[in-house]
Amino acid sequence: MHKSRLEAFSDGVLAIVITIMVLEMKVPHGTTFESLHAVLPVFLCYVLSFIYVGIYWNNHHHLFQLVKDVSGAVLWANLHLLFWLSLLPFVTGWMGENHFERTPVMVYGGVLIMAATAYLILVRALITHHGKQSALARAIGSDIKGIISIVIYGVGIVTASLHPWLGAGVYAFVAAMWLIPDRRIEKTLPS
Amino acid sequence: MHKSRLEAFSDGVLAIVITIMVLEMKVPHGTTFESLHAVLPVFLCYVLSFIYVGIYWNNHHHLFQLVKDVSGAVLWANLHLLFWLSLLPFVTGWMGENHFERTPVMVYGGVLIMAATAYLILVRALITHHGKQSALARAIGSDIKGIISIVIYGVGIVTASLHPWLGAGVYAFVAAMWLIPDRRIEKTLPS
Amino acid sequence: MHKSRLEAFSDGVLAIVITIMVLEMKVPHGTTFESLHAVLPVFLCYVLSFIYVGIYWNNHHHLFQLVKDVSGAVLWANLHLLFWLSLLPFVTGWMGENHFERTPVMVYGGVLIMAATAYLILVRALITHHGKQSALARAIGSDIKGIISIVIYGVGIVTASLHPWLGAGVYAFVAAMWLIPDRRIEKTLPS
Amino acid sequence: MHKSRLEAFSDGVLAIVITIMVLEMKVPHGTTFESLHAVLPVFLCYVLSFIYVGIYWNNHHHLFQLVKDVSGAVLWANLHLLFWLSLLPFVTGWMGENHFERTPVMVYGGVLIMAATAYLILVRALITHHGKQSALARAIGSDIKGIISIVIYGVGIVTASLHPWLGAGVYAFVAAMWLIPDRRIEKTLPS
Repeated sequence: MHKSRLEAFSDGVLAIVITIMVLEMKVPHGTTFESLHAVLPVFLCYVLSFIYVGIYWNNHHHLFQLVKDVSGAVLWANLHLLFWLSLLPFVTGWMGENHFERTPVMVYGGVLIMAATAYLILVRALITHHGKQSALARAIGSDIKGIISIVIYGVGIVTASLHPWLGAGVYAFVAAMWLIPDRRIEKTLPS
Repeated sequence: MHKSRLEAFSDGVLAIVITIMVLEMKVPHGTTFESLHAVLPVFLCYVLSFIYVGIYWNNHHHLFQLVKDVSGAVLWANLHLLFWLSLLPFVTGWMGENHFERTPVMVYGGVLIMAATAYLILVRALITHHGKQSALARAIGSDIKGIISIVIYGVGIVTASLHPWLGAGVYAFVAAMWLIPDRRIEKTLPS
Repeated sequence: MHKSRLEAFSDGVLAIVITIMVLEMKVPHGTTFESLHAVLPVFLCYVLSFIYVGIYWNNHHHLFQLVKDVSGAVLWANLHLLFWLSLLPFVTGWMGENHFERTPVMVYGGVLIMAATAYLILVRALITHHGKQSALARAIGSDIKGIISIVIYGVGIVTASLHPWLGAGVYAFVAAMWLIPDRRIEKTLPS
Repeated sequence: MHKSRLEAFSDGVLAIVITIMVLEMKVPHGTTFESLHAVLPVFLCYVLSFIYVGIYWNNHHHLFQLVKDVSGAVLWANLHLLFWLSLLPFVTGWMGENHFERTPVMVYGGVLIMAATAYLILVRALITHHGKQSALARAIGSDIKGIISIVIYGVGIVTASLHPWLGAGVYAFVAAMWLIPDRRIEKTLPS
């Protein structure tokens, strides 16, 4: 099967996820600069989630550059990833409206762990489909960066149970770590 | 007529349907794990509907691999399918917010029956357009799986009128039955 | 300029317009079949608007089959059409929630007139760009069907000022008239 | 890396931004023409923002006609632009619901400045990637029009602090200035 519709569908879902999150930022009733203060925590969450969806889209983009075709297992692994990312608007709104309280920050980290795990599963499904000797498998190598991220998310959740803002800072740190696109694949691509 | 815009438009509608359903999950007012309990039924409905849209997208994807071009009748049969799928966010929200009460569960099943019927009509319109001797017609064969699904949805609606949760379980069973992608077509595709 | 991004952007906007209209159908509070009655007028409006967006997408699809490339004027004529269609969710919700009262039905007709006019302008812009001797210009011929539609919409608005439901019936009649895709272009396409 | 997915993703985000803005226009409770008056300021804001998104989509379209491939830096510069444009529904709703009061109009101008700056950064990233001798670099030349726009937005913000409606008029003036598509690139394209 061709990969083009999987890419188009994923682009569509990610574009909607990234855009409807802004709907969680309710228009404030006041008209002063102070009335924007109430929106600030939701705005910060929005920025963080926007960057995360951007990272996933970026890495998805890089990853599928090396994909030749897709199997049924890949289609479902991809939908599984999109499922967890589609929960981001919900947890973004919950964390933001409650000004980074403990439980919402911890649940946000839980969604990040599930999305990162779903991405690892997707990569595995693609490698299984293409074979261990494929350009894709060689470009990916080990998933060390993804596994480290999951561990740090776990640290972030534990941190959040003590100091919620610090936990959110840990998530922001992982985002910063990923802002650099996946060099493993760019190196492999013919220039 | 080319099939590419029909695919792009369907991908767009399905991507939006699958994503706006999450908007039915209202951010809870509390900030404890208990406050998530109130969202749990809507979340379960969301998972079920997400899987259903995923199945339809998957089967649509498989089906159109064998489609060469489309006619006016195919365009409208496709829009008819998208119409019933676009009602999923509405019935998902209704069923979830009312914690799987009788009538919403029955209406949810009614929408599933209409969507499944619309899919059968779409398949028929494609076979009429391509001819009974086409690769598409041979790959589809009989629509036995689709017809069985409609019968089981009917059983689910009757069950729901007695035990709503059991009725929802019947719908989940049909979803599980379809999680395996349509082998009929994958077999026919040149490898 | 290539036409592909104009098509993709239009598909995106129309897919979103057709899908967010369903958000105007608010989940009812009751859980009986009777509680669905309150949603029925919005549902009927949704069906009508869904068919209208389907018609526009269909005709847009047909029209652009013959388009070779696009100019700046075509881009803006297309955006102008999308603007009026993007108002459909608003007037659909207004007409439906007020059970087809006089003013909302008349305003709905006004939006239909503007969208139909915008479509005529788009066709003219395309003919200007391709030349009067082009396959496109010959396929379109006169815009008689579009002009008749605008006249009937006007009749519908006047009718609505007296009998709102009858006015809505007139709009439904025009929709039925257009359900048959544009044969002018299908005839011209190489089979 | 290919540019096609960047274009598809951008088209998706812009299509959603342009369409969900209409959701800020709440269906009025009354059913008279007078009840539409309350919606008028939001409608005017919607028209202005619709035109702005149209301009960005148009210029993005023109710009990427000359783009051959994209780098990681370009992907992020593009996401950065989409981020600021995704804030348009929020500021549109805020400005409209408060009938063009001072602070919302000033904040709206601030978002316009950020979006225009993000566009300049995107153009710079593309030129860096393609080289100063590329057709793209020669077609762009200096970014004088973009820089002038930013200056006028600044004038608009200062004006808005004194006469909010006049400030909004300044933004409308810049929009009018851009309605003419970017001739620099159209001239360079092979006809």
